[in-house]
Amino acid sequence: MQKIKRIGVFTSGGDAPGMNACIRSVVRTALYNNTQVSGILQGYQGMIDNQFIEMNSRSVSNIIQLGGTILKTARCSEFRTVEGRKKAYDNIKAAGIDALVGIGGDGTFTGIEVFSREYDIPVIGIPGTIDNDLYGSDFTLGFDTACNTVIEAIDKIRDTAASHDRLFFVEVMGRDSGCIALNTGIAGGAEAILMPEKETAIDDLIERLEGAVAGKKTSTIVIIAEGDQNGGAYNIAKHVKTKFDFYDTKVTILGHLQRGGSPSSFDRVLASRLGFSAVNLLLAGETRRVVGLKGNEIQHVPIEESINNKAFKLAPDMIELSHILAI
Amino acid sequence: MQKIKRIGVFTSGGDAPGMNACIRSVVRTALYNNTQVSGILQGYQGMIDNQFIEMNSRSVSNIIQLGGTILKTARCSEFRTVEGRKKAYDNIKAAGIDALVGIGGDGTFTGIEVFSREYDIPVIGIPGTIDNDLYGSDFTLGFDTACNTVIEAIDKIRDTAASHDRLFFVEVMGRDSGCIALNTGIAGGAEAILMPEKETAIDDLIERLEGAVAGKKTSTIVIIAEGDQNGGAYNIAKHVKTKFDFYDTKVTILGHLQRGGSPSSFDRVLASRLGFSAVNLLLAGETRRVVGLKGNEIQHVPIEESINNKAFKLAPDMIELSHILAI
Amino acid sequence: MQKIKRIGVFTSGGDAPGMNACIRSVVRTALYNNTQVSGILQGYQGMIDNQFIEMNSRSVSNIIQLGGTILKTARCSEFRTVEGRKKAYDNIKAAGIDALVGIGGDGTFTGIEVFSREYDIPVIGIPGTIDNDLYGSDFTLGFDTACNTVIEAIDKIRDTAASHDRLFFVEVMGRDSGCIALNTGIAGGAEAILMPEKETAIDDLIERLEGAVAGKKTSTIVIIAEGDQNGGAYNIAKHVKTKFDFYDTKVTILGHLQRGGSPSSFDRVLASRLGFSAVNLLLAGETRRVVGLKGNEIQHVPIEESINNKAFKLAPDMIELSHILAI
Amino acid sequence: MQKIKRIGVFTSGGDAPGMNACIRSVVRTALYNNTQVSGILQGYQGMIDNQFIEMNSRSVSNIIQLGGTILKTARCSEFRTVEGRKKAYDNIKAAGIDALVGIGGDGTFTGIEVFSREYDIPVIGIPGTIDNDLYGSDFTLGFDTACNTVIEAIDKIRDTAASHDRLFFVEVMGRDSGCIALNTGIAGGAEAILMPEKETAIDDLIERLEGAVAGKKTSTIVIIAEGDQNGGAYNIAKHVKTKFDFYDTKVTILGHLQRGGSPSSFDRVLASRLGFSAVNLLLAGETRRVVGLKGNEIQHVPIEESINNKAFKLAPDMIELSHILAI
Repeated sequence: MQKIKRIGVFTSGGDAPGMNACIRSVVRTALYNNTQVSGILQGYQGMIDNQFIEMNSRSVSNIIQLGGTILKTARCSEFRTVEGRKKAYDNIKAAGIDALVGIGGDGTFTGIEVFSREYDIPVIGIPGTIDNDLYGSDFTLGFDTACNTVIEAIDKIRDTAASHDRLFFVEVMGRDSGCIALNTGIAGGAEAILMPEKETAIDDLIERLEGAVAGKKTSTIVIIAEGDQNGGAYNIAKHVKTKFDFYDTKVTILGHLQRGGSPSSFDRVLASRLGFSAVNLLLAGETRRVVGLKGNEIQHVPIEESINNKAFKLAPDMIELSHILAI
Repeated sequence: MQKIKRIGVFTSGGDAPGMNACIRSVVRTALYNNTQVSGILQGYQGMIDNQFIEMNSRSVSNIIQLGGTILKTARCSEFRTVEGRKKAYDNIKAAGIDALVGIGGDGTFTGIEVFSREYDIPVIGIPGTIDNDLYGSDFTLGFDTACNTVIEAIDKIRDTAASHDRLFFVEVMGRDSGCIALNTGIAGGAEAILMPEKETAIDDLIERLEGAVAGKKTSTIVIIAEGDQNGGAYNIAKHVKTKFDFYDTKVTILGHLQRGGSPSSFDRVLASRLGFSAVNLLLAGETRRVVGLKGNEIQHVPIEESINNKAFKLAPDMIELSHILAI
Repeated sequence: MQKIKRIGVFTSGGDAPGMNACIRSVVRTALYNNTQVSGILQGYQGMIDNQFIEMNSRSVSNIIQLGGTILKTARCSEFRTVEGRKKAYDNIKAAGIDALVGIGGDGTFTGIEVFSREYDIPVIGIPGTIDNDLYGSDFTLGFDTACNTVIEAIDKIRDTAASHDRLFFVEVMGRDSGCIALNTGIAGGAEAILMPEKETAIDDLIERLEGAVAGKKTSTIVIIAEGDQNGGAYNIAKHVKTKFDFYDTKVTILGHLQRGGSPSSFDRVLASRLGFSAVNLLLAGETRRVVGLKGNEIQHVPIEESINNKAFKLAPDMIELSHILAI
Repeated sequence: MQKIKRIGVFTSGGDAPGMNACIRSVVRTALYNNTQVSGILQGYQGMIDNQFIEMNSRSVSNIIQLGGTILKTARCSEFRTVEGRKKAYDNIKAAGIDALVGIGGDGTFTGIEVFSREYDIPVIGIPGTIDNDLYGSDFTLGFDTACNTVIEAIDKIRDTAASHDRLFFVEVMGRDSGCIALNTGIAGGAEAILMPEKETAIDDLIERLEGAVAGKKTSTIVIIAEGDQNGGAYNIAKHVKTKFDFYDTKVTILGHLQRGGSPSSFDRVLASRLGFSAVNLLLAGETRRVVGLKGNEIQHVPIEESINNKAFKLAPDMIELSHILAI
């Protein structure tokens, strides 16, 4: 094993709050261990386009609280080709980078996995996505912040819901994962939660809402993950309205604001710990690992294990209590 | 002029942050002046349905910070009929209410104006609507809070916008008024602002966005008032996308969360001052006035003047600077 | 084992955000299982003073987002006496309460432990304290919210710190525990963190700050847990100032605002899960358990184990990285 | 009158939220009018030390939402000397700066007033201070944001206050001005407000608090401006405690976090309008004016008028209602 002299760090895929705190931790931990750091802009695209910037302690000053990612992120189909990765490797080599830390999701991990096998470069993956759908960590960077953003929105909607007789539909992120929907539905006191992991017939939804209205004579909030089988919030609202016409139905599409915002304390601490751990693993000679949180401790698992396993983070007790608490 | 012994207070129309702070101020100012207060539930509907509750100092404890309205609000077509108002008057009379304070918008003011003329009951209107489109006050209750809610959303979107090459469309409230759109567009640093008061051709918008993209190579946010002539954000995004296809376009519909939330300091102080002033006016023998803020001072104008005048609150310097600051 | 017909729920000790969400979950889970619930006001004092209120589904409507505790809390020395507990038991018995759920900290757990042994009443403890210093749960209710409150304050201070050459001292809660200080110090990017678990000589602190100033020529934030051996923030600021006089030193004492605020999504979900689990344990015949979070799962441990074990939640990697990240 | 080719912009005195939004507006308005802009770092000190940076449209990208000031601020005694100002003028001249926009308070205005008379350089002052104590504008930059920061803190304290029997003392900024204290006291529902403009005997305070306690049996918050004659919150708490010993008294010193934070929508719009107006005035040949908000419109007054007049912004109705609303 050769000593690592320069680590390249990049963010890839959808951005998530906490990525900057994580970059900062990678940079400062490396510098503390007398290892240089290059920031790679625009993820894999930046490797191919030769966009590297020298990172020093000041480059990451005053960024721990910022949403987004100072290294930016982009999709890159070229990296999926052998030629693209060849170009990336040549650039990385020329830049003196001899190890990589990639912050992102499934696609990011797959990329560095393949790359590391092809070019024998040590790599570590850090789970960064608001969807919390990665195997190998109880929580992914940005999920906690996104949930807080959603419940602040729900709380505001509930204020006005409680003043009128209205039915509110709030669409949250989650194309394949109901993690945000389930957590914020419970935390927001929603009457119903629709998510991709669980089919909900519109008729059952209507029945449930009729029960809520009958029992409470007050207003009602439905949370819908964007990936739910019934289509988005507008579509569901339209269907429900046909059988529920005495109620005013209102729709909110939170959209990309869920990706932004200053990271929560939880996400900043997690980001700092994972960045610290990723660098220490590299320096200890490890490669192709994903670092993650397990309870209160940092763990790491093989990247391929993380890629090949589906994370199921909808705890059965949470699904059960989502039904009970809305009574 | 007869001494007023009991004031009825109600909220009507769309709810707005600060209504509770205003109710509190009406109640406590009246009690301080040895005048009783009845809370009327559900606005005009509550007068017709005889929904009155006794308000004491404790009824309004710990509500100054709450969004929504503890007195609730509802639409009421019956009050627009002579019979409806007759029923309302009989109930009010029976409840011992001999003056009214109505918190709401245009429709609320029209209601009490007519009612007061028919039944010779003193009334005062307090401008409460997030749209800030009423004549007689620099600011209406809830507008400041709504703007803060919107810019928090825009700030979050900008985080993620700055990390990707994306075009964001954010739809804000304002069916007839661009007040929220203009203020939050400026405060949020938007590249373009679409509002009902000003026609914007889609082609001009596209040209402007192309300029922004060319100049900045970064992401771009467009604010759209729901009442804009081009239709909602989804519609505009669809049109823009046809000529702008290398960009990812994303839409956020903020919806009713703009009505909720804990009122800002500004709205709470304004609410407290207007409630205080409304009661003092009634006790001084005034009627059919709308209280409002003029600079740093509380003023009042005849209700009919408020109803008949269109508020134009898009200061010319603001429209001009909205173009300049986005450069 | 006798069937439980009525559960008494109470909050005790310092209040913490999430207590209301937890009460709501206890009430609704019990009702769902056809078990009645009494709310006990003011903790142990309410048992002695016979302050019970009937809880139904509506009693806990619209409280999930509220800080504080609707059941209030108080200290109660009388419950530490045999006579006090006798009185409490007689009242509880008369009210038909045959099981207890106590939400609070160490003192709360000790109280129900003793009580349960003396009177053979089944009890479950739920860890609720912002200090996160209880054994048996990775996180206690309110800790996450308190950390978010602190970092919002630190972020604001950093804004002004970065505009001036100034040294800021921020005192946070934690009489015996540095958990808030360590987490928010890392999340807030503090230059130094002082906490009860670790003695810091003032001279070492000064040296560290001199290094920070020399390296950065910018401003500097020190986080101090109130229980640190060097005394509170004012005292430390005074000492530092003597050797650092070219710098303006400023002090913020956050105080009890750290206990308030709307609970974070994390705390609301945790509260809901723990309340649900506590009731299910009672109904399953368990007693004298503390429910808690272990990773992503709910666990439970004997109360006496929780009381007798010191929680050490300052993960070694976090202490190490708090030094590195401030470079 | 000579054409202005380059404007120098600087911030001075205590920083305030909105200063960055204002710098952005000055820069972009000037560029739009084909006028160059230099940023002067550290206020007057930067003029003397020759710290100028070229500002273009990108220099002020993505700063509208940031607290603090990217141009930094510092105190500068040297500028009060003839020699200091000579050095500043020579540097400014050499840098091609032929007009100045100074954002700050009283001291800032006095500085540019004298400077402009000595060296015949056109100057405009923009009121930026959280204290809102300047003549010539209904509101100063940062005041609105600071008030929101304070009431968020009070709201959190009220949560915990309502759960215990406690007396809370919250110290807010305002050495000579009770503007923050009065506004946030009203907006926060405080039981008593102590401020420099109005002497309050401790005995009267105690009497008032005893009344509050007797009437409500609940907790109580006192807001204290740091400049109150009775000394800071700790001192007052100590005095009150002697006659109020059955109550737990708690103190929060908000300190400099009141200066930070992302500016409110109100402050951002105000900042944008004032910056726009300042540049337009300079380009129209005006000098020695302070721009400000009057109602909904931008106005300007002579600097010396602003310096010589004391702003009295404690509206009589607000002082009166602060007494009534706490009942």
